[in-house]
Amino acid sequence: MGTTQELARWLVGGAPERLPEDVAHEARRAIVNIVGCALGGARHEAVEITLEALGPLFGPPTAAVLGRTERADPQHAALLNGISSHVEDFDDTLPANYIHASSPVASALFAHASAHPVSGRELLRAFTLGFEVTSRLGNATYPAHYRAGWHSTGSVGVFGAAVAVGALLGLDEQRTVWALGLAGTQAAGVREMFGSMGKALHPGRAAQSGLCAALLAQRGFTSGEHILEGPRGWAAVTASEYDLATVTDGLGEAWELHRNTYKPFPCGIVNHPAIDACIQLHDEHGLRAQDIAQVRLHVAPLVIDLCGKTDIHVGLEGKFSVVHGAAVGLVRGRAGLREYTDEAVNDPDVKAVRERTTREADDPSVSEDGVHVEVQLADGRRLEKRLEGALGNLKRPLSDEQLSAKFTDQATLVLSEEQAARALELAWRIDELEDVSELITATVPVGVRTA
Amino acid sequence: MGTTQELARWLVGGAPERLPEDVAHEARRAIVNIVGCALGGARHEAVEITLEALGPLFGPPTAAVLGRTERADPQHAALLNGISSHVEDFDDTLPANYIHASSPVASALFAHASAHPVSGRELLRAFTLGFEVTSRLGNATYPAHYRAGWHSTGSVGVFGAAVAVGALLGLDEQRTVWALGLAGTQAAGVREMFGSMGKALHPGRAAQSGLCAALLAQRGFTSGEHILEGPRGWAAVTASEYDLATVTDGLGEAWELHRNTYKPFPCGIVNHPAIDACIQLHDEHGLRAQDIAQVRLHVAPLVIDLCGKTDIHVGLEGKFSVVHGAAVGLVRGRAGLREYTDEAVNDPDVKAVRERTTREADDPSVSEDGVHVEVQLADGRRLEKRLEGALGNLKRPLSDEQLSAKFTDQATLVLSEEQAARALELAWRIDELEDVSELITATVPVGVRTA
Repeated sequence: MGTTQELARWLVGGAPERLPEDVAHEARRAIVNIVGCALGGARHEAVEITLEALGPLFGPPTAAVLGRTERADPQHAALLNGISSHVEDFDDTLPANYIHASSPVASALFAHASAHPVSGRELLRAFTLGFEVTSRLGNATYPAHYRAGWHSTGSVGVFGAAVAVGALLGLDEQRTVWALGLAGTQAAGVREMFGSMGKALHPGRAAQSGLCAALLAQRGFTSGEHILEGPRGWAAVTASEYDLATVTDGLGEAWELHRNTYKPFPCGIVNHPAIDACIQLHDEHGLRAQDIAQVRLHVAPLVIDLCGKTDIHVGLEGKFSVVHGAAVGLVRGRAGLREYTDEAVNDPDVKAVRERTTREADDPSVSEDGVHVEVQLADGRRLEKRLEGALGNLKRPLSDEQLSAKFTDQATLVLSEEQAARALELAWRIDELEDVSELITATVPVGVRTA
Repeated sequence: MGTTQELARWLVGGAPERLPEDVAHEARRAIVNIVGCALGGARHEAVEITLEALGPLFGPPTAAVLGRTERADPQHAALLNGISSHVEDFDDTLPANYIHASSPVASALFAHASAHPVSGRELLRAFTLGFEVTSRLGNATYPAHYRAGWHSTGSVGVFGAAVAVGALLGLDEQRTVWALGLAGTQAAGVREMFGSMGKALHPGRAAQSGLCAALLAQRGFTSGEHILEGPRGWAAVTASEYDLATVTDGLGEAWELHRNTYKPFPCGIVNHPAIDACIQLHDEHGLRAQDIAQVRLHVAPLVIDLCGKTDIHVGLEGKFSVVHGAAVGLVRGRAGLREYTDEAVNDPDVKAVRERTTREADDPSVSEDGVHVEVQLADGRRLEKRLEGALGNLKRPLSDEQLSAKFTDQATLVLSEEQAARALELAWRIDELEDVSELITATVPVGVRTA
């Protein structure tokens, strides 16, 4: 039996009906985080443009869009949820494969569940399965798939979206194989889009394509039977090296949700050690822009590869710039959504410090989750900080309270404080909801509120 | 200036407003062929399932679907046109890169033009530009892209669909760069789907994604600026070797439409020499199934790679089986749509001869466009045919009359003879039509007619 069929068989017949409580709790944390991110991004220009460009083509408005008053058909709701929840680069990250798995999976699920009766418990289980498949396929093809230039949040997440919706639809084994096949043959998204709106299109399109794959498979639209292991299947075509055994080994024993992390800063995760260290320096020394003469960041090569941008003009570019992250950390002592706006990247103080900051991969002792920061002050003093393991990583996870605070910070950009509190409360007890529409509806702004 | 921008600049400012007549005529031939194919595939199960699965999600029905009475929003009309026009594997082929370029490009154009006023001349020009871009990108990345396992009709065609719709929308240079970017980052489709409905999903999705890319870019949805040449752009990610200089060299001088071919048989084009030779043997010797003891096909390695299937149960599989093609040629003396039905592949006579047929890549003198057939008859006689260059190839192109006959054969599966004749007449003079909707509407069946 090939990997595709083996995986389908487990999804249909092997996966537990009731999630272990530790897994369910991590799934709730992921839901709280991703719904918060969708609210934080709901008024992003990329969302507005998508509504304007494609709105006239929307089908019957049976689904709510997270954080928006507009409604859409489920395919477009999935697309919009995926864009909004990823566009600020504030969503969750799997450090083992750099996939942001919740966006494509949850975006498809909320879109489908908004239009059909689905209990919170069913949704949480489907989410967990979609997350599991996404992360395992990511692990099996990492690093070759990602290094080749694929943005795996889209190009792997599409499988998770299909599997998750497939679980809600109750697809049988054959149809699950087809859903995987039709998802994999729509897998797309390249890293050339980083720093543009195109990046957020990836989880949006993955959510939409995964939903589409599950709906087609449900009705009997056939696909090749070996999308994962076939000689012209997804793994062989998109990764020079891979190990498909890891896709199915120990399914149901170890859960990938336990390897998920939540960002304290809305930007590329490899920037986080530098930002964390710079905020600490700011707080410890009360730094201001004019105090700082020069900054040297010693980082791992991957940081420069992913976030080496130095010529920054718009907020989105700042998210892929470790020097920008360091600059806002040193100057403002924080790196929230407001530090990644167009205004923030052009703030003269931030810009001045950023232009005095260099980043080099010149110290092999600095890990991908570490940093060594040297700051030369105008008064001649020299500050230094070495940090290993940024806030939010697997060893220093955000607490439930910190996740709630992050949710509220974002949600109040579009919701009243009362509404945000209500949505947060529902998200934490999602698996008690008879119909998950209760949560989805709670994210829709009531009345007019300016951002 | 990078290839992406250079290409965008030519599309916006360099391409001729009026096509040279020889190019326009070849474009008309391609339109006649692809509309005929869409009619031939309009009632295929893959189309029926898509309508059933996604119909409830369709937006306002502003666009006609070729060959169907149902209407859809343009995105779904593009999807359906792409599926129907490719599902029988009867559409056009570029021998230089094996892309079926008309399906993704024309499917998007007809969908958009059905919902907006577009003259036939504008459509023919946009089609020619989309075709040109598709084929040039195919050439630049062939053979590495295709050999890696990409089904380039989808994974390259998406660019052509975006460019073609972009021409109708009058996108400027910057927005054309974004349309290319947003198209390329949705590029998808793997060859593992061959022999299943998933294959036809590729041009459908490419048409839909290309249209979506153009609509998003029009409104200012940004993408990376270097989708073609960027280190994590489409070419680098999907092809181990490529030459982007060929994308822009001599644009407007030599036209790719002159390198296009039209199939006489609805199956993988590499089968055509064997089918052609076997039909000739049937006609010359009046062969019947019981006369044939053994058949040996000597073919190029690529034929076995693409169409080596021997265990055939459904019609779609037959399209990727050179032994099936040979069997119907020998037994029935023809290989039309009726030779690739589920019934035909299970016809005892065809099956018996197919099972007595072997295919080997054991003669290096046989080219990819040639075949050497040996037939052992039950009466002890031995027949043999060597053929170089099958009917329909660049040296033996189908005539306009043969294209008209192919159109009518397919169109009359869904239209009355009168309606088919009317549609054919309009297709041939498409660039005289004030509004191309006249042609599109003419393909919609009037009244009830069973297939």
